[in-house]
Parts: sequence; C-alpha cells; structure tokens
Amino acid sequence: MITKIEGGVCAAKGFTAGGVHCGIRKNRIKKDLSMIVSEVPASAAAVYTTNLVKGAPLLVTKQHLENGLAQAIICNSGNANTCNADGIEIAEKMCALAADKLNISEDDVIVASTGVIGQPLDIAPIAEGMAPLAASCSSCGSADAAEGIMTTDTVKKEIAVSFQLGGKTCRLGGIAKGSGMIHPNMATMLVFLTTDAAISPEMLKKALSTDVASTFNMISIDGDTSTNDMVAVLANGLAGNPRIETEGEDFSAFCSALNSVTVCLCRMIAGDGEGATKLLECRVSGAKDEMTAKTAAKSVICSSLLKAAMFGADANWGRVLCAVGYSGADVDVSKIGVAFESKAGKITVCENGSGVEFSEEYAKKILSESEIDILVSLGEGEASATAWGCDLTYDYVRINGDYRT
Amino acid sequence: MITKIEGGVCAAKGFTAGGVHCGIRKNRIKKDLSMIVSEVPASAAAVYTTNLVKGAPLLVTKQHLENGLAQAIICNSGNANTCNADGIEIAEKMCALAADKLNISEDDVIVASTGVIGQPLDIAPIAEGMAPLAASCSSCGSADAAEGIMTTDTVKKEIAVSFQLGGKTCRLGGIAKGSGMIHPNMATMLVFLTTDAAISPEMLKKALSTDVASTFNMISIDGDTSTNDMVAVLANGLAGNPRIETEGEDFSAFCSALNSVTVCLCRMIAGDGEGATKLLECRVSGAKDEMTAKTAAKSVICSSLLKAAMFGADANWGRVLCAVGYSGADVDVSKIGVAFESKAGKITVCENGSGVEFSEEYAKKILSESEIDILVSLGEGEASATAWGCDLTYDYVRINGDYRT
Repeated sequence: MITKIEGGVCAAKGFTAGGVHCGIRKNRIKKDLSMIVSEVPASAAAVYTTNLVKGAPLLVTKQHLENGLAQAIICNSGNANTCNADGIEIAEKMCALAADKLNISEDDVIVASTGVIGQPLDIAPIAEGMAPLAASCSSCGSADAAEGIMTTDTVKKEIAVSFQLGGKTCRLGGIAKGSGMIHPNMATMLVFLTTDAAISPEMLKKALSTDVASTFNMISIDGDTSTNDMVAVLANGLAGNPRIETEGEDFSAFCSALNSVTVCLCRMIAGDGEGATKLLECRVSGAKDEMTAKTAAKSVICSSLLKAAMFGADANWGRVLCAVGYSGADVDVSKIGVAFESKAGKITVCENGSGVEFSEEYAKKILSESEIDILVSLGEGEASATAWGCDLTYDYVRINGDYRT
Repeated sequence: MITKIEGGVCAAKGFTAGGVHCGIRKNRIKKDLSMIVSEVPASAAAVYTTNLVKGAPLLVTKQHLENGLAQAIICNSGNANTCNADGIEIAEKMCALAADKLNISEDDVIVASTGVIGQPLDIAPIAEGMAPLAASCSSCGSADAAEGIMTTDTVKKEIAVSFQLGGKTCRLGGIAKGSGMIHPNMATMLVFLTTDAAISPEMLKKALSTDVASTFNMISIDGDTSTNDMVAVLANGLAGNPRIETEGEDFSAFCSALNSVTVCLCRMIAGDGEGATKLLECRVSGAKDEMTAKTAAKSVICSSLLKAAMFGADANWGRVLCAVGYSGADVDVSKIGVAFESKAGKITVCENGSGVEFSEEYAKKILSESEIDILVSLGEGEASATAWGCDLTYDYVRINGDYRT
C-alpha cells in the first residue's frame, strides 16, 4: 500500500531541507542554493549523465559516494560549474563549506550544480550563503529546496509517499528540476530523493539503477543529454525497519515505492519541459521484449515532427509510425496499431500499419488536452514500456534562441 | 577539372525532363508530377531510407533496379504513397503508365512519391497527366522537374558539372527536394542524378553508396528519418568515355564529380530545411578516425539546443561540447576546441575543453550571417568530417504544428 503524503524530501524521518538566494543569480527573487540534510549518516547512491562532458560536481560526488554513505546534499542553480578549469576545486570547496557548517565530513556531502556551462562559478556568494542556508533547513523546507534548484522550470517539483516495510511505516520523497534556465543551456535534470527506510548502500544502488532505466532514462525534452544530470538518493534508516540487505519482499516493496515517486517526478519534469504546453506519454505494448518497447517508445517521444504535431493537436499518426520505423527497434510494421488518448477520450488512427477512418474533429478534441497518451501496439509479444516527453512549441525556440547575455 | 554548368538533370547528353500539375495537389499553381528520361537505357543505382516503414514506391523501385538498368524516373509530390494498403499496386501502375507513354519496359522505370503518408494516392490524375507530362519533357525541363518534386521547399534545387573521363567531356547533374510539405509530414528527401558518363551498374552503385555516406547521410533537418528518402542516379554512357568497369583513375574522377554535385545539393537541402533561416555546416577535424568525426559532426548538427542558439545568433558553445559529449564518439573532452566562422569572420570560443574569453558582440555578428560554419577540433588525429543542418525556428514549429486538414 503506497500512499501519497506531504513533505517532499522532508517527509522521511530525520531529513531537513532549505534554500536561499545567495547571489549566484542576479534575480534576487529566485533562490539559488539548496541543502538537504540527514540527522544521521545515510546509505547513498547516485546515477549520473552518460555525457562524456561531465560537470565537475558529478566527479566530486562520485568520489564521495565510493563508500556508499552521505549525510547532506548541496546544490546551486544559475551555473553548472562545467567546462571550467577550476571546476573540481570549486565543487570540493562547496562540500567543505557545507561540511564545516554542518559539522560532518566533507566526504559525506553530495554536490550538484545546474545552469550555464563554461562560466567560472564564484565561490564567494556560496561561502557567504552557507550560514543562512544551514539556518534555513527545517522539516518544512522541501519546497524551498525545490525552488533553489529550479532554472526555467515553471513549477516546483516535489512528491512523497509512505509505505510499509517489515511492519514499519517508511517514507520516501523527492524533489526535481527539469529543463530550462534563465541563461538557457543544458536540459539539466536533477533529482534528489530521501527515505527513512533502512537499506544497505549496495541494495540502494541496485534499486536506483534499475529504476532509472524505466523512469528518468525514458524522458526526453529535446534529445540533448545534459552534462550535469544526476539522480541521488539518501536512505537514513530512521524508520526502523529491518535493514534491507538482499532481494526479497521488502526490497520489492521498496522498489515499488521508489518507482511511484520517480514516475511522478518524470511526469512533472516532462510536462514542464522548456516551452511545453502538453505532457506526452507514449506507451508501447505488444513488444517481443522490453528493449524493443523502450526503443520504440523513446523514439516516438523524441520526434521533433511528432512533438510539433502534438503542439498543433494534429493527429498525424504517420509521424508515430515513422519514428518507430527509424528507431532501430525490430518490429513488423504491418502489425503496428496507433491510438491517441486523453481526458477527452480515445481514438484509434492506425491498425496493421495502415490508416483507419477517424473523425478529425474528435481527434483534435482529444489532442487539445494538456496530457496526451500515445498508444502504440506492436502485436508481437507481451512486453511494454512507457516514455515521457512534451510538445515542441514556439516558446522552446524562444527560450533557447535567446542570447545568454 | 570540375566545372559548374547549367542544365540540372538535363545537362548530361541524352536526358530530358519535365513537370506538370496533374491534380494530386489542390493548389493548381504548383507542379506535382515530374519525369526524367534517358534516350537510351542507362546504368542505374539508388539508395533508400533505412526506416523500417518504407514508402511503396521504394519497394517497387528496388525491384526494378535489380538488373542495374533504368531509363526513366517518375515522381509525384503531394502524397507519399506510404502506409496505404494499395501502395505497391499504385506505384506499379505509375511505372506502367510512364512506360507505356515512353514505349519502354516498366521494369526500367524508377518511381518515387513525396507528401503526406497514410492517405490513399488516386491514380486517376496521374493517368490523365501522363500525356502532358511526357510532352513537357525537353532538354530545358530540369527546372520544371525540380519544381514538380518540391513540397514546402522554398527554392528549386538543381546543379550540374562537367568533367573529363578518358579524354571525353562528361556531365553530371541533379535535382533534389528537401524537407517540408503543404501537409507537413516527413522530411522526405529525394535526389535524382543523371550523367552521360559510361559506367557499369556495379561501379555506379559503388560510387553512389560511398558518396551518400559522407553527403546525404550527413544532413539533418530535424532528426526524423523519412519513410520515402531516395537518391537515384542514371548513367547513360552517351559521353562516349571508356566505360568504367573497375576502380582506378577514371572511377576516382567520376566520384569527385559526383561528390561536387551531391555536396552542393546537401547544402541546398540543409539551407532550405523547414523553417530554416540559416545553413549550418559542422566541420570536425583532428579526429582519430572518420567514424568518430562523422558521429561528432552529426550530433552537433542534430542538437535542438544548438539549432535554437544558432537561430538566436547566440555563441553558446557549451551546446556544441555537450552534443559531442553525448554523441557516442570516443573523444578526449580536454582536447576539444570550438570556433564559429561565417562571411563576417571567425572566432574561437573554446580551447582544450574550456571556454576562452571572446567578444560577444563579434560572435553575434558572425552568427547573424545566413551560413554558419561550426568548427570542432578534437586534437587526436588526422580524420575529419562535415555535416549539414539548419537552425530551429518558430517557423519549423508553425509548419509542423499546423493541422493537416
């Protein structure tokens, strides 16, 4: 039984969070420095961008997580601290400043940055902001932390659930930032998760790695893989459940809770993609294996042509078929079916690889909603997959065509 | 010595071409049916989309080219004849109608279609249009044929060159259509080439296959691989050169001439991409091998973020580095250099993977030109590659967000 609860990253026992404006951004209204702290050292795991160009904070975090433990997360927005000669040094300083203030080891700090790349990150405002930041941390601070990591995101993204493990109530929550910046640059995605479940670092890493393959790795806003993507999770064990050390019922329950949180965050991130007016969810079914389903679903969600058609509420199903066709997935085109679904209804537009008669008017009504499901059936097996994206709009071009200066 | 000449697909001896409006499109001003004819049977070769969803005309053409010979090309715009239950039958009828009118074998006809997919193609207007179409064919008809295959292309694309083979003057010309449709659908690309050089079907196929790998396969308008892409070449031998049967000096000369034509057409297609205001050419040098250079160059040209930045004349070089980083190319990030160049000058923006100081004003001036070169040096070897694309603009979204109906 997984239940949605309030509190975001502070929902789990022993976690506090906060966010302040320290001056990295010129816009003084927007917070630009966030912190999440666990009362006690926690099992910790993270996954990172596969881009060969990696932000300096990722390299530092990776090192700090070698022992599978962490106690705090520090993250700034407004500057990605990437492709800077002094990047590593600055990221390490951020950890040291946080560790000093919290009286923990700097090896137990996870550091992340998001914003424009290739511009030196000044440590001064961060150093000055550390005391007010630490003071701002409280069990009600999730929303402030969520704001501090936002760039051109238009909504804060936080979620939490409660669930049972070994007779104990556990909580798992998260905050995320999606794509977009004031100085637009990378569609950087950051997700920070906290839980009071007791779980070993190894099993936590296993749960996270498995989960991202079908959640965050199935989002695409614009096909550009950021240099700074990171998903990190802290599990401090304060729920008092029997610590998860192996696979089994408890691990499965933990993974389900994790998945319920990550899927929510995925939908929030995709629906708030740069310039987006619509959340697109592509569900591929009837695939001969999961990889085929994933490949096809992600290709559909990445198609600029389809994304533009969805913006225009145009039931241009040929673009769905085209995207499946070039995806590299091994499919039998003559068996493919396509339907569009939303709150307004569901309409089948293609069967057995060929078009079927449908009402353009009804299709337009369905596609004018803000959440659209694109249903693709491959007719070859039992495997399925889901991918999330958004429409391609004038605002995407406006946001990303703007001068940085 | 390769010299630009007039005449497009009719520049080579023994080729005529024409185009008419037959009624597939409602817009009567725009020609929608084109034909190219050789006086004598010609060596013929073609390459096709790798999309698993393939237009019916491609399947018919593939069959007709099994013997390496053809004498005519028939092509309509306004309807892709793809994902239709009767597609093959209709494509075969188009060949039969053309063959009958030209008094040649229908196996010697190459057929192509471009336009919206999933809508049945009515053979009636094509049947009626065949007589006026054949009558329109002349040695001055290249421009008409180029118009008849256009969709939302804004300029006709034709080019021809003369060159020497075995003491004989040969000619090679082509027409092309790029991306965009009145009912926007696929970024279908069609290229038809003619030459009077004598060359065996085998060597012609070899020349074409080799060439497309570094020309047409290095274009991207929007990352969507069409279902109907085709590049076809006819070589009728009327120049009287010693027939090319093997590799050697003549084959190299032929390949050079072919490349000079295809590169011109690539630039025309990329510069006239849907909604494009700028032609982008990405030249990657210093790669350890050609595949690395190609992978990096194509990734840069495909980045929506970079394309939007180029639209905004924003020297956002981080997006170039990011795209190289996620391309899958094996590169050493710390050695990468980036520069932007145009008629207005050249500016270096990144060296050794980190930013260098540069004048934003000067960069903006350079990026405000209509043809931008993005120069990426990898500092690891001697291999290089070029890719072509265009900027991402409001008009791309407008064109592709429009309703089909």
